[in-house]
Amino acid sequence: MATRRLDHALSDLRVLDLTRAAAGPACTRMLAEMGADVIKVEGAPGGDMIRHMASLQFRNEPSLYFVQQNRGKRSVCLNLHDPRGVAILAEMIPHVDVVVENFRPGVMEGLGLGYERLAEIKPDIILCSISALGQTGPLSQLPGYDFIAQAYSGITSMIGPADDAPYMPAAAIGDISTGVHGALAVVAAVHHRNRTGEGEHLDVALLDAYYHYHDANVASYSGSEGKHQPSRTGRHVEYLSPCGIYRANGGSIVIMSFLHHWPDLCKAMEREEWIDDPAWNSDAVRLQKMDEVVPAIEGWLQSFPDVESAVKRMQDFGVPCAPVLSVAQTVNHPHHRQRGTVRRVHDRLHGEVDLPGFPIKFKKLPNNTELEAPTLGEHNAEVLGEMLGRSQDEIRELAEAGILQEKEF
Amino acid sequence: MATRRLDHALSDLRVLDLTRAAAGPACTRMLAEMGADVIKVEGAPGGDMIRHMASLQFRNEPSLYFVQQNRGKRSVCLNLHDPRGVAILAEMIPHVDVVVENFRPGVMEGLGLGYERLAEIKPDIILCSISALGQTGPLSQLPGYDFIAQAYSGITSMIGPADDAPYMPAAAIGDISTGVHGALAVVAAVHHRNRTGEGEHLDVALLDAYYHYHDANVASYSGSEGKHQPSRTGRHVEYLSPCGIYRANGGSIVIMSFLHHWPDLCKAMEREEWIDDPAWNSDAVRLQKMDEVVPAIEGWLQSFPDVESAVKRMQDFGVPCAPVLSVAQTVNHPHHRQRGTVRRVHDRLHGEVDLPGFPIKFKKLPNNTELEAPTLGEHNAEVLGEMLGRSQDEIRELAEAGILQEKEF
Repeated sequence: MATRRLDHALSDLRVLDLTRAAAGPACTRMLAEMGADVIKVEGAPGGDMIRHMASLQFRNEPSLYFVQQNRGKRSVCLNLHDPRGVAILAEMIPHVDVVVENFRPGVMEGLGLGYERLAEIKPDIILCSISALGQTGPLSQLPGYDFIAQAYSGITSMIGPADDAPYMPAAAIGDISTGVHGALAVVAAVHHRNRTGEGEHLDVALLDAYYHYHDANVASYSGSEGKHQPSRTGRHVEYLSPCGIYRANGGSIVIMSFLHHWPDLCKAMEREEWIDDPAWNSDAVRLQKMDEVVPAIEGWLQSFPDVESAVKRMQDFGVPCAPVLSVAQTVNHPHHRQRGTVRRVHDRLHGEVDLPGFPIKFKKLPNNTELEAPTLGEHNAEVLGEMLGRSQDEIRELAEAGILQEKEF
Repeated sequence: MATRRLDHALSDLRVLDLTRAAAGPACTRMLAEMGADVIKVEGAPGGDMIRHMASLQFRNEPSLYFVQQNRGKRSVCLNLHDPRGVAILAEMIPHVDVVVENFRPGVMEGLGLGYERLAEIKPDIILCSISALGQTGPLSQLPGYDFIAQAYSGITSMIGPADDAPYMPAAAIGDISTGVHGALAVVAAVHHRNRTGEGEHLDVALLDAYYHYHDANVASYSGSEGKHQPSRTGRHVEYLSPCGIYRANGGSIVIMSFLHHWPDLCKAMEREEWIDDPAWNSDAVRLQKMDEVVPAIEGWLQSFPDVESAVKRMQDFGVPCAPVLSVAQTVNHPHHRQRGTVRRVHDRLHGEVDLPGFPIKFKKLPNNTELEAPTLGEHNAEVLGEMLGRSQDEIRELAEAGILQEKEF
């Protein structure tokens, strides 16, 4: 499998990947996309449940959801309910730099593979534990899904209308971006290990990642001694104007023509008289009459046949704005294609498919490299042979005993 | 300044930080919180405009917004409109490992400090360029704000009601998480440099980070040959049920009792008969009658006096759920306090204030270390003296000539 020897930033690292679902696999997939040899150990019989997620199924199994987060990894499928399976896992530890897991907190200890034990086997091991709400604290044992961590983080409370329940984004912002945090944690810990010989146990949680996104809310609550209670304010922010989502023909437009950008919008609207008019010329006065500002702008937007022509008019005048693109529009957008924000990949089972690009672009190292998602247990023999020195006979016996599993997807 | 010599994962790295506002400073602040010596060069006369952002001002200047993203850095304030200021900047390059900038694409070249020039001065330099829409592509010159990149990414289109304009989260998810991507890019490139001696130019954009959060949307559009057009579906996802936001007395609750979690919710609701009833017992049938599912659950939630008691009832039965906490509730939550998800820090000008914690928790390395945000130009003399060997007289002359600036905040 040529992809595994990808010459990239992290090609000297080997990662034992005990993750499934989304956040953990996103972390190790980022490491794999930067060249790390990622060995994904999946529990027999079915492996990562995301392989078989019917509601996210298109074309064939495994789901494209699995393919997206697991390209470039090797798969070993072990029966972890059998002590012989766990023993093989333990035998891998001396051969890897990093272990990443996203079990419920405590499960690694239950397997006899908590950080203390791993560090006995390999003192400089780096263990990265990814979870929804963290390894510690009174909520740590709750079932962990993205939207649960998001709700506990206070981020959900900041999305939607002031006078009704909030909305959740239909994208796994927490899962994927926590994977990015995990990858950063791992690479920083490797850097530290290389200098000092010290290992580390990293605790990375969706809750903490989401909480970190409060750029102003926590400080404004605390800094005002609680007088400012941050809460959702609908389609427009509460501290600048115009800054929000405006309805246009056929869609919506984000307009951010606050502060020094205001004159540009006035010119685009042919309302130059508002540039210096004290009833219009400051964010403070505009915020006080949003019931006039929004209809004035949305009314003007109605004079355009579509979002595109309205955006073009504003961008010609330097107004910071953007069309709210649908996913379909993004996939076919020349900017997104040219940058590799979206990429077309080849998968052995699915053929050609579009996926989000690797989110870091390199000038010299390769970008959006060709990788394949592994079939279940595809690399059982390879990994147990090369890394653990098992003979072909021994590997066959392990398979017959149900310790190793292999499937077509 | 003791903080600068913080013994942490990245203590051997020196970073020249040419960033302002949010995404760039978040990147370099994460590096500083892991021990890097970050020298923030701010343009005279005012420095980072975020220092003075009145709408985010509480207590004193600089804004807490500035403090939050700039703790642990050193500040040098240089007049970059004067060639002597730019020359000093160039003189710093041989002394740093990494340069991070978030100017509009092309500005570094305009200063005579594009990647090619930096690599002439120091061949293994790592330049990380952070922007809204990327260094390349037809949209790269547009003004860049978080919500503009979010709109172009298709993420905004996935938030809100199906039959009206979307909503934007009132938190800088794109800015801060792009900073995390930037920090990962930098540390991975340092790892590569240490092995190979090669430098790198990294292109990190909010658009690409946001796009990366489409865990299923891009694949489902592409994998279905465009038959599935992902779009926002309100407070409930379209592929599992229950999975969404439910109204309760005094607030809202995220409930995710789909698939194998359904029986737990039935038991909590004392509706055991629904566990095996074919009219209720699959996600598929529930998705087809959301107009019954939502009122049944919301009606039951009304029997509780508040969100807390309803959540407790469901969590006692193992139902994955969470209260939609307000920011105020998160700041005072025992879990968030105990984990350091939120932290109380001391600032010289603001006193004690709560801020989001560092989102990676370490077992051995220090967590949430004490750091101060610099006053403008606070380290002019220190950096120009120690690093560039300028005498006190020379530094005084530069200040008198307006090349160096220093202010109390």
